[in-house]
Amino acid sequence: MSAFQWPARVYYEDTDAGGVVYYANYLRYLERARTEWFRAHGHNQLALATDPGVLFAVAEVSVRYRRPARLDDLLITSCVAARAGAASVVFGQQIRRGREDGELLAEATVRVVCVDANGFQPRRLPPQIIGDLQ
Amino acid sequence: MSAFQWPARVYYEDTDAGGVVYYANYLRYLERARTEWFRAHGHNQLALATDPGVLFAVAEVSVRYRRPARLDDLLITSCVAARAGAASVVFGQQIRRGREDGELLAEATVRVVCVDANGFQPRRLPPQIIGDLQ
Amino acid sequence: MSAFQWPARVYYEDTDAGGVVYYANYLRYLERARTEWFRAHGHNQLALATDPGVLFAVAEVSVRYRRPARLDDLLITSCVAARAGAASVVFGQQIRRGREDGELLAEATVRVVCVDANGFQPRRLPPQIIGDLQ
Amino acid sequence: MSAFQWPARVYYEDTDAGGVVYYANYLRYLERARTEWFRAHGHNQLALATDPGVLFAVAEVSVRYRRPARLDDLLITSCVAARAGAASVVFGQQIRRGREDGELLAEATVRVVCVDANGFQPRRLPPQIIGDLQ
Repeated sequence: MSAFQWPARVYYEDTDAGGVVYYANYLRYLERARTEWFRAHGHNQLALATDPGVLFAVAEVSVRYRRPARLDDLLITSCVAARAGAASVVFGQQIRRGREDGELLAEATVRVVCVDANGFQPRRLPPQIIGDLQ
Repeated sequence: MSAFQWPARVYYEDTDAGGVVYYANYLRYLERARTEWFRAHGHNQLALATDPGVLFAVAEVSVRYRRPARLDDLLITSCVAARAGAASVVFGQQIRRGREDGELLAEATVRVVCVDANGFQPRRLPPQIIGDLQ
Repeated sequence: MSAFQWPARVYYEDTDAGGVVYYANYLRYLERARTEWFRAHGHNQLALATDPGVLFAVAEVSVRYRRPARLDDLLITSCVAARAGAASVVFGQQIRRGREDGELLAEATVRVVCVDANGFQPRRLPPQIIGDLQ
Repeated sequence: MSAFQWPARVYYEDTDAGGVVYYANYLRYLERARTEWFRAHGHNQLALATDPGVLFAVAEVSVRYRRPARLDDLLITSCVAARAGAASVVFGQQIRRGREDGELLAEATVRVVCVDANGFQPRRLPPQIIGDLQ
């Protein structure tokens, strides 16, 4: 099964004075791809915050930067979601240049925890999400 | 009377691939200085959102960029606040390099409107704020 | 003639604790649309920086914020470019919700100056750009 | 020996619609503290880029988010630097609320690689840096 993919263009806003994408901004591409993964699977995160009243909060991020992304690059961010306990999902993500099998620029692992939208306490994953996890 | 001043250092996060501060990020320095102006006058914006239940929303911004700010620059942002009607405050702001009378990098006018914290409808300026306006 | 249009989705990265898009981040959408206007007209800004060696630096921005953009909104940013002297272009831009004729969220005027890519001195607009201005 | 510490205030620019600091923006605080660590030890990164012609590029980041930082919080970011091979430095960093021994909000490990300022190939750490590493 091929991973979910989401494109992003690099604009000036993403770069820094080193001439490449600022290291924190790769996390934006990662989050856009996770958000679109939810949407593509029919889950609206704003709706989930109301019913059943849960948010997905990032608990851990690891990024390995392999090559710099540059101004005007088209980036393809992939996203594979796996269950990790009663309340957690782990996303394996890659950012590649130009196309799905383009040059690997960054690899990331992101663990998100399902939490109560008000109190931020951990909550079991909603059943409708579990079916979409590996 | 001298204007309120607030310093900021330029880090990589602020710059872009042109080697200078990204044009939208000057608005961050402007907002930090306005926030600290409120704080210096004894107004906590989070407390005002609860009692009397108002926020200050930006309605208009004009920025004139005169010279680029660069990595590692120390910037001094000034802030003069004037009343502009029953519900508005206009901030005159400047960003200078290095010190209060340093090289002028940007000038801005920012109009903020006092709005209801829930519905975003305009509300009269709280009396405790009015006393601090020119 | 209809204006050039460019879409953008609002992600968490764009919003602030007020629950709406942070005021500086509208300038990102404006710049993405201007960059894509250049691209749509066959002008690659990276190539122009090499030959004839010019950049377009923002000299003035005015934004009028009419209604807040929110998480998950699809925004449509328009862009009309007009000549303004030997070295300047003025962009008239609007940001609307959902579609070309959707609710107007923000209006902006952005003046950019054609400058030498090295020394930042003003340079005449390249002839290939002038043909695309109103 | 106590770790190097650097303060940062949370402004609207740092937060998101969840009401807390956006997960990528913690990496800005981490980088500000590393930059100030260099400065406090007498190393100007812009000067190092010219002589001996090296930059420090982030190769790996791991962040564990423990509790959310909120608008107006004062954050204290710590920084301990250790040598990790001929060309790498590993920074151990923590972000705490309010003071040096305040509530732990995030922990991070950041590996940076000394690279040629032009070609981005790994270069041996400059001797003047090595003396400041653990």
